Amino acid sequence: MENFNFKVETNILFGKGQVSKLPNVLNEFGKNVLLVYGGGSIKRNGLYDTIQELLGKDFNLFELSGVEPNPRVSTVRKGAELCREHHIDVCLAVGGGSTIDCTKAIAAATFYQGDPWDFTSDSRLVTQALPIVTILTIAATGSEMNGGSVLTNADTKEKLSFGSRKVVPKVSILDPTYTFSVPNYQTLAGSSDILSHLFENYFNKTTDTMVQDGIAEGLMRTVYHYTPIALENPENYDARANLMWASSLALNGLTGSGKSGIWSCHGMEHELSAYYDITHGIGLAIITPRWMKHILSEKTAERFAEFGHRVFDLEKDTNPMKTAEKAIELTYQTFKEWGVPMTLGEVGIDNKLLDEMAEQTVKHKELTTEAYVSLEKEDVLAIFEASLKEMTF
Amino acid sequence: MENFNFKVETNILFGKGQVSKLPNVLNEFGKNVLLVYGGGSIKRNGLYDTIQELLGKDFNLFELSGVEPNPRVSTVRKGAELCREHHIDVCLAVGGGSTIDCTKAIAAATFYQGDPWDFTSDSRLVTQALPIVTILTIAATGSEMNGGSVLTNADTKEKLSFGSRKVVPKVSILDPTYTFSVPNYQTLAGSSDILSHLFENYFNKTTDTMVQDGIAEGLMRTVYHYTPIALENPENYDARANLMWASSLALNGLTGSGKSGIWSCHGMEHELSAYYDITHGIGLAIITPRWMKHILSEKTAERFAEFGHRVFDLEKDTNPMKTAEKAIELTYQTFKEWGVPMTLGEVGIDNKLLDEMAEQTVKHKELTTEAYVSLEKEDVLAIFEASLKEMTF
Repeated sequence: MENFNFKVETNILFGKGQVSKLPNVLNEFGKNVLLVYGGGSIKRNGLYDTIQELLGKDFNLFELSGVEPNPRVSTVRKGAELCREHHIDVCLAVGGGSTIDCTKAIAAATFYQGDPWDFTSDSRLVTQALPIVTILTIAATGSEMNGGSVLTNADTKEKLSFGSRKVVPKVSILDPTYTFSVPNYQTLAGSSDILSHLFENYFNKTTDTMVQDGIAEGLMRTVYHYTPIALENPENYDARANLMWASSLALNGLTGSGKSGIWSCHGMEHELSAYYDITHGIGLAIITPRWMKHILSEKTAERFAEFGHRVFDLEKDTNPMKTAEKAIELTYQTFKEWGVPMTLGEVGIDNKLLDEMAEQTVKHKELTTEAYVSLEKEDVLAIFEASLKEMTF
Repeated sequence: MENFNFKVETNILFGKGQVSKLPNVLNEFGKNVLLVYGGGSIKRNGLYDTIQELLGKDFNLFELSGVEPNPRVSTVRKGAELCREHHIDVCLAVGGGSTIDCTKAIAAATFYQGDPWDFTSDSRLVTQALPIVTILTIAATGSEMNGGSVLTNADTKEKLSFGSRKVVPKVSILDPTYTFSVPNYQTLAGSSDILSHLFENYFNKTTDTMVQDGIAEGLMRTVYHYTPIALENPENYDARANLMWASSLALNGLTGSGKSGIWSCHGMEHELSAYYDITHGIGLAIITPRWMKHILSEKTAERFAEFGHRVFDLEKDTNPMKTAEKAIELTYQTFKEWGVPMTLGEVGIDNKLLDEMAEQTVKHKELTTEAYVSLEKEDVLAIFEASLKEMTF
């Protein structure tokens, strides 16, 4: 295990009806609130009205709506402008990871003289930020309990991230009932995203991290158990609650602390969504099993076999390679059974830009030196190409 | 899953050499430091000298030593007196759970007009506390990352607890190398304590808490895997690191949030240590498998079988009772193999006060109404009596 620093200061208010505490929560920070949200889903499900009722009289509520699924830096600029203009005291992000990520950038950009896109090349430029409160409406990115933010620059076709303690939400309200109305496609994209965070930390060069890995295995089992239940019955409270809490814990440092190295699938997927604006979780589901198969070797087989044993309850075989292969097959098949489109073609990506995106992947991420298994441009291209067609086992 | 509030504000500095950050850490709070510690172990292993060197020049260091393994409220009174007298800014607890628990009570008692024993009957009396920094020297209680404190009143033979957000340590330095010199007896007592925290949360009436339970299972596997390694080779860094991090995560809210009800074995053990001043973790190890056997029924068998499957890798049998019985046997046998004295006689307790202690147990804890399986005085007595002799399977 490597040295690490672990601190998660987000105050989690979890469960039905926690939104009633919102006025008290915001009061700690001030009266001028910037409400940030995406499309109209919070208007359709009544959350928008609830917030208006709770805050209408006592707070000065300003709004930034229309945050994109892959949030644009142009929206961040607009939000920061609003914050400065209206002397905003606290940002209230209501939505999923995109809305929260965008809000983090806004909260920091408010105090930054340059352009917020700069954060993606140097997180240290975030020196101050407005306090952030979130109300989560989809279980997916974990952004509600960490300091990470992923932004898209539509002009340069770049999707990059920054991270800072300064933008960790102060309070996050996690009410599973707000996810009852999440459409199935988004539910499975969210679950794929949670799983990917767990995979990326789990398949890692650092050894002897049984605490972190045991937690990850438990969270993976949870996602595999409850996703089909939520797809079948979107208003199953326990399914939604477990998925929601799993999403926060998958990426708040618990499964990644004490490990070094960088993530592989996210690097590749970020190029797909930067070029084609696809749903992040779906891109991850497509890439992941191909990546697993590509890096499977005598050296990694043991790890994949352990994953299969702990997560899919596979018998420990004397030959770890056999268990590993079965685990990868199950990873692929489960996504398919959930209804994830599992080839690039199904999400509108053909072979034309694969080479360029592979090039960009290794340019943006140190996959050749810091990944679990080193990936050169050719490896990334092979994984992209394998993603064009169905997998066979 | 029930509604909950989760917040852990402790800043964890984990790994070799983190103590070098101590001056910066303390500087945030002030120059007058009360160093609290127990016996002489930190003098023997060099940690005391390290602290003196690091802080000697720039801080005003006052000392309270001799904190007991079951810390006395009389020591708390003495500590609070020192804090008031020397205008202490921050308490530095160096040691294990007893030292940290005592420090929490001191930090709160400094601002309290009445007697600190009052906290154990009403935690709300803790309205303010000095900031606490800890340096952990044994993996066991988890006190380094939560707001709980257990105190002993030698006059009344009572061992009771209080809990408050106000006394959650601000910073905890977790350097596994400080546990290299922990004697085997204390190492296994510590591991038993960690396991017990996990068991108490795991065997609980609230259902559909797969996130919490999956985390607990992972931490249990970690303790079972690394304890024999640490006993065999006390300087195995990875074993000590995993045990240390498991101890903090077992009791920081992760495995208990979203569940209700109270703990059973701790209630019983607290009477044993209040009357006989035995090592807490050892008492828990003795009580636990008897308690498991006592409450095993058609109703609980499924849960114990799941525990056996996830933690001891037992095959899932069509008959959960069989798997459950095997899991309880393994719980007992593993403690024995580690070298835990597994009968009350071996720790100097005979049958004379069992009835009185059983009486006190149900007086101090709502075991009849709030436990996983309801326990009347007769049940507690039966468990105590079963603890006098070896278990058979």
